[in-house]
Amino acid sequence: MRQRIYFNEVVTRDGFQMESVFIPTDTKVELINELSQCGYAKIEVTSFTSAKAIPMLRDAEEVMGRIQRVQGVEYTVLIPNIRGAERAMDVKPDEFNLVMSTSETHNLSNLRMPRKKSFISLREVIEKFGNQVPINVSLSACFGCPMEGEVPQQEVLQWAEKFSDLGVRGLTICDTTGMAQPEQVARMCEALQKRFSKLQITLHFHNTRGMGLANVLASVQSGVARFDASLGGLGGCPYAPGASGNISSEDAIHMLDAMGYQTGVDLSRLLPIARQIPTIVSHEVPGQVAKSGRITDLHPAPAYVTDLLKEIS
Amino acid sequence: MRQRIYFNEVVTRDGFQMESVFIPTDTKVELINELSQCGYAKIEVTSFTSAKAIPMLRDAEEVMGRIQRVQGVEYTVLIPNIRGAERAMDVKPDEFNLVMSTSETHNLSNLRMPRKKSFISLREVIEKFGNQVPINVSLSACFGCPMEGEVPQQEVLQWAEKFSDLGVRGLTICDTTGMAQPEQVARMCEALQKRFSKLQITLHFHNTRGMGLANVLASVQSGVARFDASLGGLGGCPYAPGASGNISSEDAIHMLDAMGYQTGVDLSRLLPIARQIPTIVSHEVPGQVAKSGRITDLHPAPAYVTDLLKEIS
Repeated sequence: MRQRIYFNEVVTRDGFQMESVFIPTDTKVELINELSQCGYAKIEVTSFTSAKAIPMLRDAEEVMGRIQRVQGVEYTVLIPNIRGAERAMDVKPDEFNLVMSTSETHNLSNLRMPRKKSFISLREVIEKFGNQVPINVSLSACFGCPMEGEVPQQEVLQWAEKFSDLGVRGLTICDTTGMAQPEQVARMCEALQKRFSKLQITLHFHNTRGMGLANVLASVQSGVARFDASLGGLGGCPYAPGASGNISSEDAIHMLDAMGYQTGVDLSRLLPIARQIPTIVSHEVPGQVAKSGRITDLHPAPAYVTDLLKEIS
Repeated sequence: MRQRIYFNEVVTRDGFQMESVFIPTDTKVELINELSQCGYAKIEVTSFTSAKAIPMLRDAEEVMGRIQRVQGVEYTVLIPNIRGAERAMDVKPDEFNLVMSTSETHNLSNLRMPRKKSFISLREVIEKFGNQVPINVSLSACFGCPMEGEVPQQEVLQWAEKFSDLGVRGLTICDTTGMAQPEQVARMCEALQKRFSKLQITLHFHNTRGMGLANVLASVQSGVARFDASLGGLGGCPYAPGASGNISSEDAIHMLDAMGYQTGVDLSRLLPIARQIPTIVSHEVPGQVAKSGRITDLHPAPAYVTDLLKEIS
């Protein structure tokens, strides 16, 4: 028996956020209720950002209010600032997930303010609500910025340190635009676990350049046990139209499951749900295992082979 | 500097073989001539199978006769039997690549004869031509058979041994239908290198379940230095319609290149060629890096970000 791996399903937040056509609230609630039965450690339900900034997630309160929570699953929400945090407190999430980028240019592009200002804003949330709800901080562009290029590991560790000092429970190290390669991932995982041994360290990969599961492999080899992933591989990156998005939950879980890791997720429940995603978003999705089946799903031999086999034996 | 990795480009054989519409001989010749300029160690040009079995490769002699060979690149061809070998000798390939499956059911399905008969037929080729041309043997379904399921490692090693005893130069261990997982790959690579330390060991992966590059990673970590790959990820598997095919050459080379391995392949030459593949086959292909660009390909920041950056500094 290998170690336990914990998956955070981000499809209804990070996955849906990039979709152009509004997904009905009923569909979101139903999907989350189904996902809650699969054995995930955590589900990132939605984001308490402004409805104007992300119209797709304008139904955050309603979704959080209507889903049926299952014991053992944590329901986390993305919190952009103190206003979002105040709104979110009414629906009692199990965790706040705060976000900023380790790249100045990426933070300016995404959040339209310098990192220093983002940090002050997130610190305000932590100071006000940190004793009422566990806090995770997602750091974007930790393995490279599509505009600046390389982001030094030291830069990531410094921002991580600032939040660790504020007493957060966990850090998610995000490869927001799929720039990480396995050797860099291994180095990052080792440094993070050494320096923040008491924090929950989660890795968040995109498959933009096909390296998503190789990076998951490098992470588990380095002892990391927590991953974000998105059903169907939904998500995507504005800089790479046509390329894959987040790592596909079902593909990542399938690989680790095949390797003997305990993911807690029941793939026989998850795959039928993954197969609904193209219908929900009205387009094909990059996830492979929903198309190919698991490695244990066998096919009957053609009739001529069955006949030949009889002849031989 | 990390170790040298050797790539065998199989797009015009393994990749094209699955395509339904005939690709003109001129296109094949042009493509191989372009690929010859990229730094590949080897190119699998075509197959000397019967024109009836694989109409796509009915122009094997013409393609081999017309391509401009580049020094340092080996031009290998697939040889199904003694007839194919005799035909191929006229065009002087640098290597014969023989093929059979380690799974009885898969061999019967694919080659319509039992493994024992395949072995006798391939042995005939090796005995007749082995002193005139180097021989590689590709063993299919080494990590699982879509009909039988698990293929024991011992079974693979036994077939490998038989060919090793006949004095072949190399063995290609094929995950023909994308059933390999990294832990299994690592075990296989270690066993092969220990037992056949004098042979060229090549790994051939498919990305059917998204694990292709994770399996490449597991292989290089185990010291394997040779891979088959197909431009664009062309190839596919009849058991998984819609799923990915062979690992994409450009994605695999890009990952190893980013990790510091010496692949010999010039990605700045290869990517424009990879971007022609959808036009050549008239459909989208699974390769990611041709869409996303390399991790070193940066994007300009939007105007509002440039303005904000000026304010800060």
